[in-house]
Parts: sequence; C-alpha cells; structure tokens
Amino acid sequence: MNRYSLNQATTKYWPLEDVVKASANADLEWIGLWREPIQEYGEERAAKLVKDAGLKVSSLCRGGFFTATDPAERQAKIADNRRAIDEAAILGTPVLVLVSGGLPPGSRDIDGARAMISDGLAELAPYAEERGVTLAIEALHPMFASDRCVVSSLAGALDLAEQFPASQVGVIVDAYHLWWDADIYRQIARAGDRIVSYQVSDWTVPLPADNLLGRGMMGDGAIELRRLREACDDAGYDGPIEVEIFNQELWDAPGQEVFDLAYARYQEHVV
Amino acid sequence: MNRYSLNQATTKYWPLEDVVKASANADLEWIGLWREPIQEYGEERAAKLVKDAGLKVSSLCRGGFFTATDPAERQAKIADNRRAIDEAAILGTPVLVLVSGGLPPGSRDIDGARAMISDGLAELAPYAEERGVTLAIEALHPMFASDRCVVSSLAGALDLAEQFPASQVGVIVDAYHLWWDADIYRQIARAGDRIVSYQVSDWTVPLPADNLLGRGMMGDGAIELRRLREACDDAGYDGPIEVEIFNQELWDAPGQEVFDLAYARYQEHVV
Repeated sequence: MNRYSLNQATTKYWPLEDVVKASANADLEWIGLWREPIQEYGEERAAKLVKDAGLKVSSLCRGGFFTATDPAERQAKIADNRRAIDEAAILGTPVLVLVSGGLPPGSRDIDGARAMISDGLAELAPYAEERGVTLAIEALHPMFASDRCVVSSLAGALDLAEQFPASQVGVIVDAYHLWWDADIYRQIARAGDRIVSYQVSDWTVPLPADNLLGRGMMGDGAIELRRLREACDDAGYDGPIEVEIFNQELWDAPGQEVFDLAYARYQEHVV
Repeated sequence: MNRYSLNQATTKYWPLEDVVKASANADLEWIGLWREPIQEYGEERAAKLVKDAGLKVSSLCRGGFFTATDPAERQAKIADNRRAIDEAAILGTPVLVLVSGGLPPGSRDIDGARAMISDGLAELAPYAEERGVTLAIEALHPMFASDRCVVSSLAGALDLAEQFPASQVGVIVDAYHLWWDADIYRQIARAGDRIVSYQVSDWTVPLPADNLLGRGMMGDGAIELRRLREACDDAGYDGPIEVEIFNQELWDAPGQEVFDLAYARYQEHVV
C-alpha cells in the first residue's frame, strides 16, 4: 500500500479537482480533505469525485472547539460537530480530526476547559461510532494552548481518548505538534491502536508573524520524521500518512509543484 | 519573608543601581541578575552594591548552551559555564539558571543533544557544588526546542537533574514555559526539593514577531500563576519568586513604573 496522502490544505488555493487529479495521477490511494472547501464543492459531489478517481479519504479536518462557557454556544458547537461527523460519513472517511479548543475568553481554567472537551466527546462519540467515524483528538503544539487547543501533548490526548472505547475516540500523531516531547516515544507506544493518523510537516525557525503558518516542508527542519513514523508503525499503525503544511510561500506556489515536492520529500524523509 | 524578586531583565534598560534601589526601597529581600549587565558593571562591585542595599541575589541568568558538535566549541561552552559559576559564587547566589541549548546546526538528533546536556552537567556539577552553586535546568517552552533548548518540559528537566544529587542540579519552574502541560502538577510534586526557583510572567497572544519577547505581565494572560505557586509550595519550595518578563513594551516604559506594576500584579495574581 502507498500510505502517502496529501491534505488539501497544503495546496490551499488549488481547486479540489486538481488535487484529486494529481493524487490519482501519482497512483496514490489517499487524499486528506478540509471541511470548508468540501462544503463549498458539495459533500456528495466531492465523495463521488474522490471515489471515481480511485481514492479514499484519509481524514476530514476538522471538528472540535468544545470549550465555551455559554451553554448555547456549546450546544451550537456540538451541533456543528454532528454535521462534521455526517460529512465524514458521506466522504467515507473513518477519521474526523478534532482541534479541541483553547481557553474560553477571559478564563484561565485549563482543567475546566479539558473537562468541556471530555463532555463534548461524550456527547458525540456514540453518534460518530454509529456512522463509522472515529473522533481523532489532535494535540496541538503548546504555543496554541491558550487560543486553539488546551490538549498540548500526546499524553494529554490519550488521557482524554482513553475515557472512551478506541472504536469511538482515537488520536492523531502530528509530528509538527509533538516532536519536541521527551516522552513522545513512550506515549506513541502507549497509544497503540488509538493512533488513527500520522501527519507530517517540519519544524522550521524563525516562526512567521502568523505562527499558524510556520510549518515547513519535510526535510527543511528539525523533526526526526522517519523515526516518528517507525514508532507509529511499531505501535501498530499502518494507515495513511498525511502531509499537512500551512505555509504562505507554498500556498503561493503552483499546486502541482508543491504536490511533486511534498511527495519527493516524503519519500526521502518519511518512508 | 517577602519572596518577591524582580529579575533585572524585566527592566532591561534600567541601570542596575536603579533596580537595586527600587528593590531596597520596596523592602524586598531579593533581586534576580543577568550575566551580561553584571559583567559590564563588574561582579565584585555588583555583589557589594546588592549587599549594601540589604538584598540577596535570587538567581543568575544564565549558563548552559551545551549542545555543540564541535569538541572545541563544547569545551569553550564548558569554560564559559565555569565562569558563570564563579560569577554566581561572587554574587552569593545559590542558583545558576541554565538554558541548555537547542539542536546543533543541521542536526535532528534530539536525544543526542540531550545527552550533550547531560555530559555538560556532569563536567560542571562538582565544580558548582564546591562553590555553593546549584545548576538549575530551565525547561523552555517547546516553541524554543530547536534553537534554544531541547528540554521542553519539567519532566524532561527532571530526567536530566535526577542523574545528579539535588545539591548539584535542580530545576526552575517557569510558569511561562510550563503552564500548558497537563502533567505539570504531578511533575512539580515529583520535583520536590529539586525546585530552586519559581518564575512568573504571563502567556498572552498573539505572540510578537520575535517570540522571545512574547511574555506578558502577570494577570494579562492565561496562566494560573497562584495555583502553580501553591503547587511549588506544596512540593516544599519556599524560596524567592522571580518575575522575569521579556517584553519590548515594558522595556520601553520607565523602570519605576514597570517595577511598581510588576510588584502590584505579583501581589494580586501570585501571592
């Protein structure tokens, strides 16, 4: 099996049909999708496009954002997550990636925020399982802890996931977010069959002014991508490996060029 | 005891004599010092200035930077750390803060970098102990892992420190670097008498373009500073609490204004 999967966010401004075509032309089996462009294109239509090209969807990004103090806002988030699960089911992907949410505005209660995530998962997990979708907790780099995701380590993601059956809640191992952790190899082993995706990009410095867009191309940075991949393999993960890079320079480059570069770098630094 | 200590880096452009005077005027017992301005002022002279003002030095920043692949460069770093230990001894402070170092240029070998830190500590620890100085490993926020410090969590700092007697190697609990960690309270309890300093500032977003200067004033951000302080207390730490903020806006403000604000915020959010 060719495990490579390009997440369409890597070529953000390239039309879906072009990413699908490039992936099929490269004899890939997988593609990673993002909710907003898929909603725009139409979920059923996107599902057909991908299927007709002989591809499967490795994951759908993203649900989550469970941390809100206002009950109405929380219920709106839960409803949006149900829609995300439905979209994942339509696309036939078993993985819905969750960015869990940061601290509610004005709050410092990080334990409380984590409890809200746990509550959100509890409300959604059975609904997801019925539709063949695993909720995938993605620990984000600690620099996003206050405003995007209070789950900042694989250990923290597993502490949440393990409150549920593995068939309902898994974890993402995203190298960019986790590479620095002295405990990462022990936690990957602990994760075992909770791992539902291994995602790659690279850690480069300096970070750009908008640190959401700091991800580098594999091989340009500090991360032992192959070693992490091998650790996921050893833990039993044999699914797709997704390339997910948010980088303005890459977004500004021609889609096919980025596609070719990412695939070459994957073969050089990850496989 | 008044545990408050202003690290002079918080008022970077304020002359040492002014920081000392302000600290004495506020009836403080402690002050935190930085190597470069102290070298410029003269170590013996600074020691006398501080002592005559009735103050003690809570810590000296900073040694470390052990990670170099070139043997000559590594030996130069060790020699510089010996000088830092001598300076700490002259100033009468029991705490030399270490920023351990990032990945050597072009390297991705994070375990190897951590081993270099361990080797550096082994070379220096007896020398430090003879001079009454504890080497204090400071875990830095993971966003600095590649270029400044591959020790990114209190657990990682303790893994290193515990290779040595507590009289030789301790750890810093810096709220800014560690607040996001789901495991932090367990690790603070584990640290026990290894804790040689609790340092405070606050986590604010967005980070500035130079993310070294992103620290906020206590109370302006996301960190449960009091809860962390209480955890350090419970672990047995009863020494000085150092305010260390790198922030261009504060550096541009009048020293006394920053001093007063920091002290007021400390009383409001930390004590």
